[in-house]
Amino acid sequence: MSLENKSLVTIDDLSNGEIMALFSLADGMSANMKEQHGLCQGKIMASLFFEPSTRTRLSFEAAMQRLGGSVITVSDIGATSLSKGESIADMARVVGGYADIIVIRHPWEGAARVMADYAGIPVINAGDGGHQHPTQTLCDLYTIQKERHTIKGLKIALWGDLKYGRTIHSLIFALAKFGADILFCPSPGLEVPQHVIDKLITEYGGDLEKLGSLDQTAKDNLFPLDAIYTTPSSPHQLAMMPDISVQIELKEGVDALYVTRPQKERFDAGEEGRDFKEKYPVVDKKLLKGRVFRKTLVMHPLPRVDELAYEVDADERSMYFKQATRGIPVRMALLSFLLGARGLDVPEVDSPPPVDYPVYRHDISPVCPNPKCVSIQATEIKYLKPEFKIVKTRPLTLRCVYCEHGFEPKYVASTDWHEGKLDTKKYHDADSHWARTIRPENLIVFNKAEEAQAHGFKPSHYTGGHH
Amino acid sequence: MSLENKSLVTIDDLSNGEIMALFSLADGMSANMKEQHGLCQGKIMASLFFEPSTRTRLSFEAAMQRLGGSVITVSDIGATSLSKGESIADMARVVGGYADIIVIRHPWEGAARVMADYAGIPVINAGDGGHQHPTQTLCDLYTIQKERHTIKGLKIALWGDLKYGRTIHSLIFALAKFGADILFCPSPGLEVPQHVIDKLITEYGGDLEKLGSLDQTAKDNLFPLDAIYTTPSSPHQLAMMPDISVQIELKEGVDALYVTRPQKERFDAGEEGRDFKEKYPVVDKKLLKGRVFRKTLVMHPLPRVDELAYEVDADERSMYFKQATRGIPVRMALLSFLLGARGLDVPEVDSPPPVDYPVYRHDISPVCPNPKCVSIQATEIKYLKPEFKIVKTRPLTLRCVYCEHGFEPKYVASTDWHEGKLDTKKYHDADSHWARTIRPENLIVFNKAEEAQAHGFKPSHYTGGHH
Amino acid sequence: MSLENKSLVTIDDLSNGEIMALFSLADGMSANMKEQHGLCQGKIMASLFFEPSTRTRLSFEAAMQRLGGSVITVSDIGATSLSKGESIADMARVVGGYADIIVIRHPWEGAARVMADYAGIPVINAGDGGHQHPTQTLCDLYTIQKERHTIKGLKIALWGDLKYGRTIHSLIFALAKFGADILFCPSPGLEVPQHVIDKLITEYGGDLEKLGSLDQTAKDNLFPLDAIYTTPSSPHQLAMMPDISVQIELKEGVDALYVTRPQKERFDAGEEGRDFKEKYPVVDKKLLKGRVFRKTLVMHPLPRVDELAYEVDADERSMYFKQATRGIPVRMALLSFLLGARGLDVPEVDSPPPVDYPVYRHDISPVCPNPKCVSIQATEIKYLKPEFKIVKTRPLTLRCVYCEHGFEPKYVASTDWHEGKLDTKKYHDADSHWARTIRPENLIVFNKAEEAQAHGFKPSHYTGGHH
Repeated sequence: MSLENKSLVTIDDLSNGEIMALFSLADGMSANMKEQHGLCQGKIMASLFFEPSTRTRLSFEAAMQRLGGSVITVSDIGATSLSKGESIADMARVVGGYADIIVIRHPWEGAARVMADYAGIPVINAGDGGHQHPTQTLCDLYTIQKERHTIKGLKIALWGDLKYGRTIHSLIFALAKFGADILFCPSPGLEVPQHVIDKLITEYGGDLEKLGSLDQTAKDNLFPLDAIYTTPSSPHQLAMMPDISVQIELKEGVDALYVTRPQKERFDAGEEGRDFKEKYPVVDKKLLKGRVFRKTLVMHPLPRVDELAYEVDADERSMYFKQATRGIPVRMALLSFLLGARGLDVPEVDSPPPVDYPVYRHDISPVCPNPKCVSIQATEIKYLKPEFKIVKTRPLTLRCVYCEHGFEPKYVASTDWHEGKLDTKKYHDADSHWARTIRPENLIVFNKAEEAQAHGFKPSHYTGGHH
Repeated sequence: MSLENKSLVTIDDLSNGEIMALFSLADGMSANMKEQHGLCQGKIMASLFFEPSTRTRLSFEAAMQRLGGSVITVSDIGATSLSKGESIADMARVVGGYADIIVIRHPWEGAARVMADYAGIPVINAGDGGHQHPTQTLCDLYTIQKERHTIKGLKIALWGDLKYGRTIHSLIFALAKFGADILFCPSPGLEVPQHVIDKLITEYGGDLEKLGSLDQTAKDNLFPLDAIYTTPSSPHQLAMMPDISVQIELKEGVDALYVTRPQKERFDAGEEGRDFKEKYPVVDKKLLKGRVFRKTLVMHPLPRVDELAYEVDADERSMYFKQATRGIPVRMALLSFLLGARGLDVPEVDSPPPVDYPVYRHDISPVCPNPKCVSIQATEIKYLKPEFKIVKTRPLTLRCVYCEHGFEPKYVASTDWHEGKLDTKKYHDADSHWARTIRPENLIVFNKAEEAQAHGFKPSHYTGGHH
Repeated sequence: MSLENKSLVTIDDLSNGEIMALFSLADGMSANMKEQHGLCQGKIMASLFFEPSTRTRLSFEAAMQRLGGSVITVSDIGATSLSKGESIADMARVVGGYADIIVIRHPWEGAARVMADYAGIPVINAGDGGHQHPTQTLCDLYTIQKERHTIKGLKIALWGDLKYGRTIHSLIFALAKFGADILFCPSPGLEVPQHVIDKLITEYGGDLEKLGSLDQTAKDNLFPLDAIYTTPSSPHQLAMMPDISVQIELKEGVDALYVTRPQKERFDAGEEGRDFKEKYPVVDKKLLKGRVFRKTLVMHPLPRVDELAYEVDADERSMYFKQATRGIPVRMALLSFLLGARGLDVPEVDSPPPVDYPVYRHDISPVCPNPKCVSIQATEIKYLKPEFKIVKTRPLTLRCVYCEHGFEPKYVASTDWHEGKLDTKKYHDADSHWARTIRPENLIVFNKAEEAQAHGFKPSHYTGGHH
């Protein structure tokens, strides 16, 4: 099997089997680094980094060069045509004519999707805003797999900024896909966003158990724990147990503690001044003396700031520099796959079946409410049509196909109105009985009554306060 | 024949035959991309970009790497020694000792000329301020040639910012060289500069017909048209016809419509606030429905802003992404030529004979009045001697050899004054009878009376208001 | 012999024999440039430039590519993880997992030392603040060696900014190592720092003779001369002669005049406004007509500003562009050495024996007083323990192992106090008789009385004004 011409935008673009096949190839490459130098000779990787980065960019560039390929780089948004107002689609088509594969990092969420849609060559998402960072996730999974020989059934604690950490978002879905349990240990105020939780539960199954206050877990002499996700494949009964029994469940210990720094560059205005460290323990020697951490892999996507003490570096549980180093063979494997330089021998591994949502794509359309979504930026709105997955009907919930943020429109209408009678052109409350009778292919949604009225719709009996 | 060690600073540095030979080679390379990988192995291209750029820089770097060569890059003026006050000549000599060929983009007009003068290795101008961008022109011509199999006799409309678009300036001379007619369709206020028109007429022959007001052409149901240039090789009688018959002439349609964005980064203070789109149509589906555009190639050097609608992208007349993609084989051909990796089989093609102007180079010299000219910048004036071509005598007109801007000095004198009699050290009005008796090799010019007096000259009888 | 896995942080990391062996290899490479292209195939150099640079970065990158190796580059501090607060140690460990060798330029003094301590692969210092720039020094020495066939016994004049010019500091030690005499010709106010002088005298032997005022040397019709260093290997008697005889000594002329620009980017607040050119002659044709300069090599590390006139460029004594060009084979030799691609045939050459100072490394420790020292920066202080060499006892002088700045602590104590009697926990004046009885391994030092008291020490009889 070949992944040639496939793109990697979210971690879901790879099946569990493909991921395991990549890891096998990475193992082989890492054992014979020098022999890979002819594999991508003559191939060009475009490395487009529109956000500060050292690690990821250098890792990709080194990986491509270890394969004998070469690299063209944009690493500074100021020095590029983006400052002349160029759209991502235009850049995609142009660079797609120069290179054989594109790696992109961009502050707009969904930017890599747009790049992949227009480039005509494979595109790898190296981080798009707070959305995803799937190759970091591959490095993370690879390290867990190498150290524990499985991912299924492990207990992985996520620590720190779970709100803006895109590595966290990719990792959550990947862990769920492989059947790991997840312990959420957010810095207060930096909890996992609801749209990530929603996707987790609806697409990967399993349960999320919210725990008591941090004070309670602290009293229980446990590390700060906000919620626990248990996969459907998990044999234990954790989800049904009250908070107090978390201790019992955790007596076998945590398999990995994944620490992240506060992503200050993505904080909004209100958050900037706050000190998120205040109430939250630093991961240091003292914390790691806890029983539950006895055999824990200490992981971090790096760079760190203050959340992970240097005194831990020499500890054999510390994996973060190994994670970085292992990024080279993992990315080499990925690049040679996507460039068609290596075929793929995919093992039989269970993957959760993809969920097939109805799609909302209509000339009358709300715009995505996420201010960082690529689809609403001035240069992109000229050509990108909004498009959403209808992921829930009660309440009606749409998810942007670009940034994957969800929202609940307030009003709906039906394309069925056009039966000659203009009177039938009505809009309804999205949570009304009537709204639920509209079939997805006929659905029109609005965030505001004014939007509906601007398109000639009138309030119906099922529109609260409008008749 | 070999172009080895030649530089490409303006499009005139290549004869028509050489350009056609480059295109043949580009055809061959594009057909066998993989076989070119050994051609420049071991060669180094220095890619020096002192202005924002993605497209051109990446295109050159990809082209060099497709040839098996490698690249050293400077892509940010802030990160370079220019910020330590280094001159272009010094950088040229240093980088000339590191690399085998230099590609330079620079905001100062004439910078590539200086680089070429001092580097000791071939230099390619990738855009110097508003002056020229000859490799973009090669890509443009290549696309026209591939699509129409000739350039001679075609009607090419230039659309948008014809004032600051350096790609436009290079293209105008190239089209004239190959015998195409040019339709000027500038955004109001962004007309082609006079010095470009002057060079066009005096060096390439042909005629420029100014048309009536835009209102008139609009009334005639035509697209906005400011002037028409007809080459001497053109058989038609357009130049002799009144405005009204433009419609008749254009009944066969326009062969290419070359659209450009407003080059806002080069606008002067007064222009910045203005809205140049205001009175000017966007190139969109509606406009392209016009009869004259039925078979028109729609071209754009990219990036675009708002002047070219995305709805046109899928139209088969749209050439702009092809232009970009074809930049790779064109630049590969050029690089391998200039590096001596490929010989040249130059066909017999008519080229307009080069015009040989007398040169003004004198210790007593005015400075170039173009504020963006390389020769007057603080770091360059230390070693660059002003030098001008005397391109016209009535009125006396000098053209800077660096930026090619022209100007008309107000006063002249003769080096013949030094016959012992200090009384003969006189200066005269440049448009006086006496001025025209001075032979070019004896000519001294001044922009101001004060300059003349500072050098010890006194006003003569032929100096208005000074005797 | 192999230099594999060795780092080059200061010029002292190479013995005289190794330097001469490098120069032989550079000679060979420069004669057969094309044959070196397979030498480092498959190897990756990380080029980490956290300060503006063209020359040095491009020179290293071109050198690596001439060897067939490839390059990953960071050339802008804004575009890197340093802006996310990453430490040098973390970056070292990460990049050390990607590349085979690291070249680093950094504004903090001692940064390259830290990089070398943590990277696990060879590190080359390409300039760390005002500290050292050893590969520039290699290029300088190589040029002198090629032109004069020796360094020993030559008279080398250093001209301009001797305070902030790191190339100057590396060069001084290198010249002393090879037995050259040094004439110091600083711009007034930009004299060689005392810590450099101290190291020069104590580690390389020889004498420094301070000359009379600049006015005096000017009166003697000599170029401005501040001090003369004569090596121990020097047979002449200069150091014993009064100022007036300098003229006699210099009658054979100066062998090289090494000019530097004012390093304005490192000036402190008080210096920024001053005009250092004011009292100091520019090196121009006129100056070089002086008898002493008749056969002088005119050198400059470039870039120049105004201190070296362009009119000198064509002079056959001018070496500065040759210095730059020769940087390629020198760096090629160095890279292939450190990467283990070439063995080393080290000739027998005298090197001054390394001086073995006692080291001060204690939990109770002052911090380095140099504000640009890497060891006191917010991101580095988290893990770096201060460490000093005790280079002198009268007055007690410590030298930071990172930035090599020296300082004289005011107070001392002894770890011997812990004999149960708290009364013995005393601190003393560093210049007291008692202080000198403390053995180095027991020494504790303080810059302030408060520091001593904060650690529970009380003033002793040998603490001035404290009892």
